[in-house]
Amino acid sequence: MIRYPNGKTFQPNKTVSSQNSQKRTHSYSNRGMTLEDDLNETNKYYLANQIAVIHKKPTPVQIVNVHYPKRSAAVIKEAYFKQSSTTDYNGIYKGRYIDFEAKETKNKTAFPLQNFHDHQIEHMKQVVRQDGICFVIISAFGKVYFLEADKLFVFWERKENNGRKSIRKDELEDASFPISLGYSPRIDYISIIEQLYFSQEQ
Amino acid sequence: MIRYPNGKTFQPNKTVSSQNSQKRTHSYSNRGMTLEDDLNETNKYYLANQIAVIHKKPTPVQIVNVHYPKRSAAVIKEAYFKQSSTTDYNGIYKGRYIDFEAKETKNKTAFPLQNFHDHQIEHMKQVVRQDGICFVIISAFGKVYFLEADKLFVFWERKENNGRKSIRKDELEDASFPISLGYSPRIDYISIIEQLYFSQEQ
Repeated sequence: MIRYPNGKTFQPNKTVSSQNSQKRTHSYSNRGMTLEDDLNETNKYYLANQIAVIHKKPTPVQIVNVHYPKRSAAVIKEAYFKQSSTTDYNGIYKGRYIDFEAKETKNKTAFPLQNFHDHQIEHMKQVVRQDGICFVIISAFGKVYFLEADKLFVFWERKENNGRKSIRKDELEDASFPISLGYSPRIDYISIIEQLYFSQEQ
Repeated sequence: MIRYPNGKTFQPNKTVSSQNSQKRTHSYSNRGMTLEDDLNETNKYYLANQIAVIHKKPTPVQIVNVHYPKRSAAVIKEAYFKQSSTTDYNGIYKGRYIDFEAKETKNKTAFPLQNFHDHQIEHMKQVVRQDGICFVIISAFGKVYFLEADKLFVFWERKENNGRKSIRKDELEDASFPISLGYSPRIDYISIIEQLYFSQEQ
């Protein structure tokens, strides 16, 4: 069975529940939501509160065949998933360009680098060269981590030089910042950006 | 017949010609290329020369039905075009967030504002509030214009207040900057951004 790049099979018309008003626990284990759902809710919160404008890019699709029925909407009858040449999320916070990718793993001991492909790493390097704020959000080991692109590149180079093909749990803990999880916003990654790039103490 | 938001019907697998090595004329009339083709080539040039990292977002598609054949790629069997909630292009230049929409008209006397929808204008206002560099590239009257979002909003407000539903040619000429057209880059909009936002003389 062919799957999405994130390993999930396709589920049509998934609706994000906004009914749940209970305080959420601070663990990512055994929850019904995906990282993507939570990031979408987080970005909606940032947008509604004029904190930041960050959107997930649409899934790239190669369209091959479209029907144009009379008096109703065009129907795409044949199309294929394409590999993206960029990361999934980008936007703006306080004038600065923000660019990131989000990844999940169920692996208990390490984060596999095969979650990224060459094009994404190359894109992140281009963004860093243009002085963008570039990072990855990793959901692993029941937590959510903010890993700056420069740190990711070090692990990527090790892999390219025939080293480990993953980031060990303790390495990730050392290299990254934990993102606090809450109800609203759910994954407050902007607070990390504020501390790292905008705080007077830096 | 249902068409793309830009009024064109769908054409599968269109290939951008890169064979044409002739110097291009500086008129947009009677050419085989679309504005989108030229902007894609321009963005490739900026990327290859490490000038800027700007990408067109994928066309948003609502996927309804996917087949997973054995030993071959997943096939999307039913999907629909969705209206985008943002502009088509964004990225980074010298650390600043860049966001724009590109529009063409064949109208000889005015640029119709129905080329934009409310969501796009709202998105542009959010970007401007976050101090992003936001504008539209308009191909009209045989030229290509760079119109800052703030200027567009003035014409949009006039329409909302039951005024003209278009920008007259002379109004557009006054409010915008002409973009010089060339072979490589084809539509050098970054040079306008450089003058407007990065020049020492401002």
